[in-house]
Amino acid sequence: VTIVTLLSDFGSASPYPAQVKAVLHGTPRVVVVDITHDVPPRDVAHGAYLLRAAAPAFPAGTVHLAVVDPGVGSARAALAITAGGQCLVGPDNGLLTPAARRLGRLRAHVIDVETFGRRPVSTTFHGRDVFAPVAAVLAGGLPLEAVGPPAPPPVELPETPAERAPGVLRGQVLYCDRFGNVITNIPGAWLNDILDPLAVAHPRGRTALRRVLTYAAGTGREVLVLVGSDGTLELAVNGGSAADALGIRSAELVTIVSGAGTPPGAGTLRE
Amino acid sequence: VTIVTLLSDFGSASPYPAQVKAVLHGTPRVVVVDITHDVPPRDVAHGAYLLRAAAPAFPAGTVHLAVVDPGVGSARAALAITAGGQCLVGPDNGLLTPAARRLGRLRAHVIDVETFGRRPVSTTFHGRDVFAPVAAVLAGGLPLEAVGPPAPPPVELPETPAERAPGVLRGQVLYCDRFGNVITNIPGAWLNDILDPLAVAHPRGRTALRRVLTYAAGTGREVLVLVGSDGTLELAVNGGSAADALGIRSAELVTIVSGAGTPPGAGTLRE
Amino acid sequence: VTIVTLLSDFGSASPYPAQVKAVLHGTPRVVVVDITHDVPPRDVAHGAYLLRAAAPAFPAGTVHLAVVDPGVGSARAALAITAGGQCLVGPDNGLLTPAARRLGRLRAHVIDVETFGRRPVSTTFHGRDVFAPVAAVLAGGLPLEAVGPPAPPPVELPETPAERAPGVLRGQVLYCDRFGNVITNIPGAWLNDILDPLAVAHPRGRTALRRVLTYAAGTGREVLVLVGSDGTLELAVNGGSAADALGIRSAELVTIVSGAGTPPGAGTLRE
Repeated sequence: VTIVTLLSDFGSASPYPAQVKAVLHGTPRVVVVDITHDVPPRDVAHGAYLLRAAAPAFPAGTVHLAVVDPGVGSARAALAITAGGQCLVGPDNGLLTPAARRLGRLRAHVIDVETFGRRPVSTTFHGRDVFAPVAAVLAGGLPLEAVGPPAPPPVELPETPAERAPGVLRGQVLYCDRFGNVITNIPGAWLNDILDPLAVAHPRGRTALRRVLTYAAGTGREVLVLVGSDGTLELAVNGGSAADALGIRSAELVTIVSGAGTPPGAGTLRE
Repeated sequence: VTIVTLLSDFGSASPYPAQVKAVLHGTPRVVVVDITHDVPPRDVAHGAYLLRAAAPAFPAGTVHLAVVDPGVGSARAALAITAGGQCLVGPDNGLLTPAARRLGRLRAHVIDVETFGRRPVSTTFHGRDVFAPVAAVLAGGLPLEAVGPPAPPPVELPETPAERAPGVLRGQVLYCDRFGNVITNIPGAWLNDILDPLAVAHPRGRTALRRVLTYAAGTGREVLVLVGSDGTLELAVNGGSAADALGIRSAELVTIVSGAGTPPGAGTLRE
Repeated sequence: VTIVTLLSDFGSASPYPAQVKAVLHGTPRVVVVDITHDVPPRDVAHGAYLLRAAAPAFPAGTVHLAVVDPGVGSARAALAITAGGQCLVGPDNGLLTPAARRLGRLRAHVIDVETFGRRPVSTTFHGRDVFAPVAAVLAGGLPLEAVGPPAPPPVELPETPAERAPGVLRGQVLYCDRFGNVITNIPGAWLNDILDPLAVAHPRGRTALRRVLTYAAGTGREVLVLVGSDGTLELAVNGGSAADALGIRSAELVTIVSGAGTPPGAGTLRE
């Protein structure tokens, strides 16, 4: 059995995911696992985060089919990538790159659409007509090299890497989940490097933080900082929404500082 | 392995789809594929469009179980239909008919509820108690004729067929997807019959159109016309919503005209 | 083949359900059936109702993995329960108890997290790190006793049991579905004990009811009472929403009375 995961912005209320699954089930012994089809329309960075969060949980041999593809039908390449024993298939717009880099050293090939695409290939639905047929043959055992020639380095999405300096951790918000938990790209272990009291500086101000191990340790509306399930720092409110409390959204920069009175930008980090 | 697809208005947050799947998995070697459970409540025409869009992607032998059934428990018949080597099971209210007609010549039977329904059959949930048991036995290989006697011609939903005349294409909006793409029933090939400049006349006015091959070819807020993935004409805005830009909704009539100055209703089409 | 169902408040647009499924598919011959991942965040009672509604439809041997777990990482126990030949796995916060009681006599064990949890176990995602590994081994055939020591009686959620007296049926609203149907815990058979005309008294007033067998029997905006698909009394409006018409929400108490003029609280029921 081979797992094929699906991630898209097609909408779970649309007919498009089923059309993709019909193609995948043309290969025997495929188990299809939806990551989600409700990525905000055309939000490549959002989809890239979800794929990067979910992919490492899957076993070697898994094929990830991901389509958030506002450039469908244009000159952007169609990619198949292998990394860490898994495969990723989708458009060359940055969607696959963070997951692939996290899985291991990546090797990318450009899909030969003439050979592997459905005839005719629509200009608006490569999920069904290009990516699904390739995911299906990869799940069936076709070697990655066979899908087409080696690709140039895939498109990278901009991301501000996490940084630290004495008393300061800085990073970017990768995702706010439906509980209002704010997931950053700051490594969880860095929290050991910084002394209480803690505060977070963000585009709309500055808020005290309490360091905890679990959501349930929070009382009232206090904003918590803890190591999330993906190993990075997460801001949370027990029974509430840290994203709402802080007015924070994905992609924004946050700075966690030691000392309630420390101004934002303290330490030696470049602004 | 036999695929059984599911389409309903039960809501993906409700307990009802799982109850249906429990019945289906009573048959071995069934793969269940959700089309969606988020059809707007009781919107038979919306569900019918989704089924008609998704069904042709599936292989022969697939069983489509579709339930948008405001008349559940009333006198409306329960149907099992075969068309193009696939089966469709659901209420006789028009939900199945467009998909069946698209798949091929249809043959419909009335389900013998006494024989195939769960005992007792609830009066409010035939998805679980009538349609799922029948879909399960059909997936298990029961011939369609065995489910009950031949049915009279199934209920048809009203649809305005596409029409053309020199310089004019007229049709109906079948669906607006979450990207705001407006999918019509006008055959894509007809776009070759009409000369630039193009405009679309719709209930709220008249808007210039640009003919393109891909969404990405659009610039600014211009409204595009292209051949969609289902082979019909689609209106779109690159990075935006054509449905919002035009104020168009499902079921409305649209007229695509040649010549920016041509008044709506030009050509020889009947009004 | 063993069915593992999933129910959570993770959100179907989040990466969390896929991470759980990746763990489950580590066991061969598992079929995963989503109940839903869109339980309102942290709403244990809502999740408990959905599980209790869906679980009885599944065959013996099914494993239900349910996670609505605001106390994740705190002292609350992790449970595996058997009842009626099925298993339930999740936090000891009341989520599993109504379903288990409905399935049969329950036997609960406390999960030995040291033995069965992933290493390391996160403090915020026991769905992936504790419950999914246990559900996977139970689906693979591990006896329930092996997961850990017998548990004390599991947490119970407060519920007002249905009561009846001459001319009065009283109960609690368990769920309002997306059609606006109001599902109560009053046994459907009790409707035979009460004479027309009927009315419902609820926190916002009193409304006449008509007794019907099907939704389609309703005319206009009249509020209907009928026996729902789960065997309990349900209030409905044909083509509309009884929940909106009555302003009723989950957990509220309702009293169905015989006689349009009978005041709320008639009969011998305690207030």
